[in-house]
Amino acid sequence: MSTVLRDAGYGKSEVRLVKVSRRPEGHDLRDLTVDVGLEGDFDAAYTKGENAGLLATDTMRNTVYALAKEHPIDDIETFGLRLVEHFLSAGPGVARARVHIAEHPWARLEIGGRPHEHAFQRGSGGSRVATVAGDGGEPDIEAGIDDLLVLKTTGSGWEGFLRDRYTSLPETSDRILATIITARWSYRGRDVAYGASWLRVRETILEAFSDHYSPSVQFTLHHMGRAVLDAVADVERISFSLPNKHHLLYDLERFELENENEIFQPTDEPYGLIEGTVERSTG
Amino acid sequence: MSTVLRDAGYGKSEVRLVKVSRRPEGHDLRDLTVDVGLEGDFDAAYTKGENAGLLATDTMRNTVYALAKEHPIDDIETFGLRLVEHFLSAGPGVARARVHIAEHPWARLEIGGRPHEHAFQRGSGGSRVATVAGDGGEPDIEAGIDDLLVLKTTGSGWEGFLRDRYTSLPETSDRILATIITARWSYRGRDVAYGASWLRVRETILEAFSDHYSPSVQFTLHHMGRAVLDAVADVERISFSLPNKHHLLYDLERFELENENEIFQPTDEPYGLIEGTVERSTG
Amino acid sequence: MSTVLRDAGYGKSEVRLVKVSRRPEGHDLRDLTVDVGLEGDFDAAYTKGENAGLLATDTMRNTVYALAKEHPIDDIETFGLRLVEHFLSAGPGVARARVHIAEHPWARLEIGGRPHEHAFQRGSGGSRVATVAGDGGEPDIEAGIDDLLVLKTTGSGWEGFLRDRYTSLPETSDRILATIITARWSYRGRDVAYGASWLRVRETILEAFSDHYSPSVQFTLHHMGRAVLDAVADVERISFSLPNKHHLLYDLERFELENENEIFQPTDEPYGLIEGTVERSTG
Amino acid sequence: MSTVLRDAGYGKSEVRLVKVSRRPEGHDLRDLTVDVGLEGDFDAAYTKGENAGLLATDTMRNTVYALAKEHPIDDIETFGLRLVEHFLSAGPGVARARVHIAEHPWARLEIGGRPHEHAFQRGSGGSRVATVAGDGGEPDIEAGIDDLLVLKTTGSGWEGFLRDRYTSLPETSDRILATIITARWSYRGRDVAYGASWLRVRETILEAFSDHYSPSVQFTLHHMGRAVLDAVADVERISFSLPNKHHLLYDLERFELENENEIFQPTDEPYGLIEGTVERSTG
Repeated sequence: MSTVLRDAGYGKSEVRLVKVSRRPEGHDLRDLTVDVGLEGDFDAAYTKGENAGLLATDTMRNTVYALAKEHPIDDIETFGLRLVEHFLSAGPGVARARVHIAEHPWARLEIGGRPHEHAFQRGSGGSRVATVAGDGGEPDIEAGIDDLLVLKTTGSGWEGFLRDRYTSLPETSDRILATIITARWSYRGRDVAYGASWLRVRETILEAFSDHYSPSVQFTLHHMGRAVLDAVADVERISFSLPNKHHLLYDLERFELENENEIFQPTDEPYGLIEGTVERSTG
Repeated sequence: MSTVLRDAGYGKSEVRLVKVSRRPEGHDLRDLTVDVGLEGDFDAAYTKGENAGLLATDTMRNTVYALAKEHPIDDIETFGLRLVEHFLSAGPGVARARVHIAEHPWARLEIGGRPHEHAFQRGSGGSRVATVAGDGGEPDIEAGIDDLLVLKTTGSGWEGFLRDRYTSLPETSDRILATIITARWSYRGRDVAYGASWLRVRETILEAFSDHYSPSVQFTLHHMGRAVLDAVADVERISFSLPNKHHLLYDLERFELENENEIFQPTDEPYGLIEGTVERSTG
Repeated sequence: MSTVLRDAGYGKSEVRLVKVSRRPEGHDLRDLTVDVGLEGDFDAAYTKGENAGLLATDTMRNTVYALAKEHPIDDIETFGLRLVEHFLSAGPGVARARVHIAEHPWARLEIGGRPHEHAFQRGSGGSRVATVAGDGGEPDIEAGIDDLLVLKTTGSGWEGFLRDRYTSLPETSDRILATIITARWSYRGRDVAYGASWLRVRETILEAFSDHYSPSVQFTLHHMGRAVLDAVADVERISFSLPNKHHLLYDLERFELENENEIFQPTDEPYGLIEGTVERSTG
Repeated sequence: MSTVLRDAGYGKSEVRLVKVSRRPEGHDLRDLTVDVGLEGDFDAAYTKGENAGLLATDTMRNTVYALAKEHPIDDIETFGLRLVEHFLSAGPGVARARVHIAEHPWARLEIGGRPHEHAFQRGSGGSRVATVAGDGGEPDIEAGIDDLLVLKTTGSGWEGFLRDRYTSLPETSDRILATIITARWSYRGRDVAYGASWLRVRETILEAFSDHYSPSVQFTLHHMGRAVLDAVADVERISFSLPNKHHLLYDLERFELENENEIFQPTDEPYGLIEGTVERSTG
């Protein structure tokens, strides 16, 4: 029997890292989860058990901590670039390195109206994420946001959709729209202020989510994508994955109570899932 | 064989409820998870299969939604009182009803510097919880907070502890202190502004967490408890459960790098767990 | 302000331990999660920051691993007893030690019909748990089972229950009954074959779950408890916590399809929760 | 600004379905989670808010239950094919339908040595999964297994790997190897006995996991892949994703105890992740 090995790759996932920067005016805190993945020619290890070309995933872990010490972590995109550059030269067979970083939000405590020097609470508003991948040429950088949970109590409906034998859902022009936004975007060039751009994308998404009547999650996805491309010139394309966290109007008529879009049952499953990418066109 | 039934009870857990209040100046949003439990004489059902004295847990669910419609939800404590009162009369065998409510935080979106009328994002700072239990006499009310994740980058140590054959931990006067605060407290009377008191307790906990050098989580627990009793006259006693979310100083000396309390590995397990109650003494 | 400290206690949770015993005829594998808790007079630490009487929770962790090395782990009950005995003498203020152990099931692989010497897959049928607590006198031992997921496709109903204004649930004499059994029991004496008893209790629970028409989860709880006390003479009392994992008959009549107890939608929330204890009576 | 919409798609996720087949000799139970996704020309909905071409995801849910009623669920692959065929004709814009099904294992209870007619407990050994995707031509079918947790207490090592500045891991010729196998494979033709093949692939994976000294997870991945292609002629290619669930030898020398591969600390994070595909070559 003749076989071939394909898509061989390996790495270290869920490396948890906190870096504290002790500046005179107060401490900074960065809380990251880093995943490292390498692809390339590892055939001797997979097929013959020859490990000489393999970097231990434990070494990848050590490297993440060591490079976090040796360099400032400004933007996660630049820290990712540094890691990719390092891992590309970390073994003879490495053809491509991919680093995914998620930054967990912390908010400095305000005590008596003043920001505290070294105490924090968990922040909100979603996690900042970035994926950097490189093969020795120009690396790919993807920025993103995870776990941005938003909800509108009105200004959303679902009407005029296709009806077939199995359709039972009534139409509505007033429902709750709730979703957990996952977004990924790429930039047009390399001269990008990653942190400022991320904040501007996030702000634009929230604004666009709020500023229109939503006839469908699909429409709102495209509307938010357009708004980001409009507002942030550096962004080339943006993709969304939007679960529709259904809030069912609870049937209170059975108890002779009227429910005018007031009492809802949020549900976890099943959920709708709406996806799509909006990108600048050259046409 | 002769046996006896004890501690018989049943209820409905994880009833998810969202109530939208459409005020002219903007919508309000309450997002609750409600657990209902009944205790009493249900022996005929347990031992003979006679259900005539049992309220269906499905009816408990309906009741939560119906009462949320029929009454305003001001404080979760008062909504809990209403539910307890209702369930105490819901069946012949009910001797005691217990309702636990967790309120999930939402923050109104600010768009262009102005609060939006009906759009929200998930808030932070912990969930507000309350447990109300009653047997027909004066009900018990316990307020609380869940999932309040806080961290100090310094101002914490662990020294002078007992050492035995199995002790390997070095002493330190500078470490990261991180915990997920769970607190429960009870009030001295019934004439309490529950919402304002909750906010004041939360604020005091954060302030006390931040304002001292912590020689141990144990000390910080007691310090926060004292501060709450000092600041909020209505609070009779307060209990804390504080997991010690260890942040390990990563060993970089192996790579000839110095790690001056800068690079840490957060860990999920195992974790220390510190508990205790501080209450006013009559002495 | 005068205050008092109560219920002070601390410990280490989620200590993960695997012990391999290399017997000539094949390896044995024990996979445990251990929680340690100490109660006592730790006032100096809580109120004054004096740590001299505190055992580090890190030392508790080391101790679990060291004692697992120094002694055989036969039954988790006896390993728990050893740990409790050790921790009772681990510090001047310790008044009571409590150890909870959960054992994760592994099943030896059968390859070509023969048990493999050292390869395993995750087992099923619930985790074995034990809690041992002692204060220097006779220790308390509680055995138990967690996560025993069972389901009957028929032989279960729910009829004749109380109906009030908020009751909408129809009666049924044929439904799916599904639950995740949590059970805890104590023994009458100390001369108990813990492992054999645990297996016998588990087997009896499964048999009793299957052998009758269930008019309610309440009845099935009591029926299983009676069966265990009948079958296992060593057991003094047994408690159950039984979530009712509702399987809703899906409404297919809307599509002119009949659904004769065939197509169900399992739901996670909300769920009924039924609890109770059956114990031998001296009467 | 000119933009274009790409990769537009939507569907329903986490549709939970239980089907009971009441055969005279005993009930059968199928417990599925179904995800449906549609791709195609939905531009009018995304860009103009015109929903006329959109099937509601609620209708997708209804359809899953209705088709489960109208047809037998033999293999999840064939049920998936039926769903894909249905959804391809479910709207004017649908170009491609994709259905993922996971089947949760249940084991019939044995009471008194005999299989029970209608009582079950949760099974082990991983979930069977299948993904079917079609665009009107020949559909793609991918079979798979999720959550197959396996462990070897010996017969595994990690030596001779690359060492660089950040390498600290010692070599070992005897360690615990533990992983949670995720596998996906495709078949060479359409005349496949899906259920029998799935069982044979699973059995072969377990056998291959157990039958050799593993110099690395990479080697074991390839070895298992080769074994499957060898044993199951219908399989064209197989991919694995293997997290390395590290079991760290606990340092007991500090306490003057020897640890001869006996006492381990299992860890959840970080973990190695090893991936690859083995396929038949035509060469």
